[in-house]
Amino acid sequence: MTVRRLSVYSRCLAQLEEDGMKTISSHELAARFHLNSAQVRKDLAYFGEFGIRGIGYDISTLRAELQRILGVDREWRVVLVGFGNLGSALFHYRGFARQGFRIAAIVDDDPAKVGRSASGLTILPLAELPRAVKAQEIQIGVVAVPAEVAQSVADRLVAAGVRAILNFAPARVKVPRDVRLQNVDLSIELENLSFHLAQGSR
Amino acid sequence: MTVRRLSVYSRCLAQLEEDGMKTISSHELAARFHLNSAQVRKDLAYFGEFGIRGIGYDISTLRAELQRILGVDREWRVVLVGFGNLGSALFHYRGFARQGFRIAAIVDDDPAKVGRSASGLTILPLAELPRAVKAQEIQIGVVAVPAEVAQSVADRLVAAGVRAILNFAPARVKVPRDVRLQNVDLSIELENLSFHLAQGSR
Repeated sequence: MTVRRLSVYSRCLAQLEEDGMKTISSHELAARFHLNSAQVRKDLAYFGEFGIRGIGYDISTLRAELQRILGVDREWRVVLVGFGNLGSALFHYRGFARQGFRIAAIVDDDPAKVGRSASGLTILPLAELPRAVKAQEIQIGVVAVPAEVAQSVADRLVAAGVRAILNFAPARVKVPRDVRLQNVDLSIELENLSFHLAQGSR
Repeated sequence: MTVRRLSVYSRCLAQLEEDGMKTISSHELAARFHLNSAQVRKDLAYFGEFGIRGIGYDISTLRAELQRILGVDREWRVVLVGFGNLGSALFHYRGFARQGFRIAAIVDDDPAKVGRSASGLTILPLAELPRAVKAQEIQIGVVAVPAEVAQSVADRLVAAGVRAILNFAPARVKVPRDVRLQNVDLSIELENLSFHLAQGSR
């Protein structure tokens, strides 16, 4: 939850930097982006050293510190497993690169896709996964495959040595404790929405 | 959170139905899908009427009831605003249709896209949004535009009369209390992942 707030602050500061601003107070930041003022003050107090009494925070210094904490000041190497609709959308999603996630390999088990090229990357067969992870020093696996094969793909990624998995398949997968798992399940988001709509129309 | 669990149960039951099973106990369901057994028992007890002592739950009846509660037993009409990489991926994402979300209109303000056809739907200019929402009886707006214009698009959707917004833009948007807002921010998911990787490597 705190990570989520750091993400939001980081994005707000990027916006302010683009707008050419140099400093901002926590109160001003909260007002501008409709955030909870007391919460922002409390969160940013943690970065007290970057605040200047009466003026506020130096925007670029604070942002750089947030990015360091969020780990987005460095490059993470990613293998994308599954190059269907969702996989290719993710591949072209500029937000990945912007946050230092570089797709270094694409894997798909469809023989029609293997060997094809996507922006200079050759799509590899699943059997090549371990070699690609090692050769490209890949830390993160993105799972964009159908639900039925999500667990077996996750298992292969773990065996190949990734440290984190971002799972887009609408399926629960299990990973060992030392591998970080993040699920982005659109089905659940959709059902959450339709649940509230359905309740509201009763 | 409970909605999330209902979503998961609904998906598990769909899987069991596909596998040809007729009944299942809460204990068996938990074991099969690596869920918390006590939690499943407690959650499903709410649907007591569908349980048969000593046998368990009738899978298709329980699933139909969950789908009704989740609101995915009916059709929700959706307008997709933004037909870039993410928008077109969402348009082709089969999960939408599977859960009763039917994209009834596409809107984009890029003159190069307006008038083009996507699977039989003509891409409309932003100015046509109010008319499309009314004519197509659209309840949900999907925002897949850049962060800078997310709020203005959300405002236009609200003014046009949608009851819910699914926001994929990496920006916070504000909507009136009576409009349901669901954010799916990939940037935040990515930062959550890189945060934990960065912490782990210290």
